Amino acid sequence: MKKNLHIIKVGGNIIDDDTRLDAFLSRFASLEGAKVLVHGGGKLATRLAADLKIPQQMVDGRRITDAETLRIVTMVYAGLINKSIVAALQARNCAAIGLCGADADIIRAHKRQHATTDYGFVGDVDRVDGRRLAELADSGLAVILAPITHDGNGQLLNTNADTIAQETAKALSAYFDTTLIYCFEKAGVLLDAEDDSTCIPAIDPVTFETLKDEGKIFAGMIPKLTNAFQALGAGVGKVVIGKAEDWDRLMAGETGTTITLNLHPHGR
Amino acid sequence: MKKNLHIIKVGGNIIDDDTRLDAFLSRFASLEGAKVLVHGGGKLATRLAADLKIPQQMVDGRRITDAETLRIVTMVYAGLINKSIVAALQARNCAAIGLCGADADIIRAHKRQHATTDYGFVGDVDRVDGRRLAELADSGLAVILAPITHDGNGQLLNTNADTIAQETAKALSAYFDTTLIYCFEKAGVLLDAEDDSTCIPAIDPVTFETLKDEGKIFAGMIPKLTNAFQALGAGVGKVVIGKAEDWDRLMAGETGTTITLNLHPHGR
Repeated sequence: MKKNLHIIKVGGNIIDDDTRLDAFLSRFASLEGAKVLVHGGGKLATRLAADLKIPQQMVDGRRITDAETLRIVTMVYAGLINKSIVAALQARNCAAIGLCGADADIIRAHKRQHATTDYGFVGDVDRVDGRRLAELADSGLAVILAPITHDGNGQLLNTNADTIAQETAKALSAYFDTTLIYCFEKAGVLLDAEDDSTCIPAIDPVTFETLKDEGKIFAGMIPKLTNAFQALGAGVGKVVIGKAEDWDRLMAGETGTTITLNLHPHGR
Repeated sequence: MKKNLHIIKVGGNIIDDDTRLDAFLSRFASLEGAKVLVHGGGKLATRLAADLKIPQQMVDGRRITDAETLRIVTMVYAGLINKSIVAALQARNCAAIGLCGADADIIRAHKRQHATTDYGFVGDVDRVDGRRLAELADSGLAVILAPITHDGNGQLLNTNADTIAQETAKALSAYFDTTLIYCFEKAGVLLDAEDDSTCIPAIDPVTFETLKDEGKIFAGMIPKLTNAFQALGAGVGKVVIGKAEDWDRLMAGETGTTITLNLHPHGR
């Protein structure tokens, strides 16, 4: 039987807020078993770019990454945020190691090719070295991943943290019984984006299609769910989307939205 | 018999110069056996501080590290420089992992206490986890160390790269036959600081005292040499000081200055 591993993606809304980040890291530190944390970047990179007067351009929520911007996100994500998290975890007796995708060649990516938009140094993931990550996680280290990858030819690339979490979960599922948890600012997948009480407890592909057809799922949620189904199809045991603040209940499966391949496996 | 390990300290004069850094990394990549690279910061941090209008103050060549400056050095050293080096090494088929002292609790330090100068968040090393580093180095990964440590209580600290190289060499000498090489801008320890041809091939404590008494050693060299003798006393096999450009001859012991405990072990 495989051991359990949790992979948690934590977004900018927590990274940007010292109090919430502290609380989150205390919860993460106390989580038993193998674990991986994938962090996004939050507003720190945007703020540093503004201070340095480097104009930033976003297309569909993605940061166009010119050479100067790549330097900024490498500094902020792989340097400041990653190492601050690692030091904070060590202080909580959680042995942690902070890496980006270039380290030990863990995540290889290629520069995004797009018909109409030049995203610059944005990387789309080619492969994750699950074996290497599994060895680290199995040695008792919490692996803290910054959303920077490389192309194998010396080029660092800015890569979406949600995608890194998903691809890492897929690669690790060969070695661990893997649960992927996306912590974000809402209670889960909501019927009314403004009302946490409308959280859908569980979604399978059939429910997903129905909700999409009925226009009941917030557009921004659709790629997250599509990715979640893909991760499940590739061997990830469970995907949960919810609020970091609801940690205990989220871990117990009592809150948030659980994404599953089949809500009624026996046709009930 | 212990395996060989090289630990190379590379300074700002190489980090700041893309062409020299490229050449250095190619040589480092081709070095056989276990290896560790400790890099300094160079002028990038100073430049970023200037761009952000954060005044910098140096005392005896050490950067006074207030909270804002700590953020800068963490970003530049542990982020930009460390990850750029790792990606460049991967491109040279050298499996590398970039870490700072907080990662896996590798280097614990304390905030410097000084009678008259407040150095801010500057750390003096308490201990290096040689076993963890040895495991990484023995697994075929070149370990790339940024000069940032932590105090175990969540505080990152800016730490002198020469000291990190020395303390790391000492800790690793329990596991490997360790050679410590300081690459800097001169050919070695010089009798005339402006003339590379006056390089002293080998120095032991007796020669060192004589040269000091005669005022023949450049003041800035004295702490480096004192540290080198201390490292040798603690089990490091060999310490060499020289120019990165002279790599092949430096590795062969044909150039640079070799620091040794006893030039004439049999009283010859």
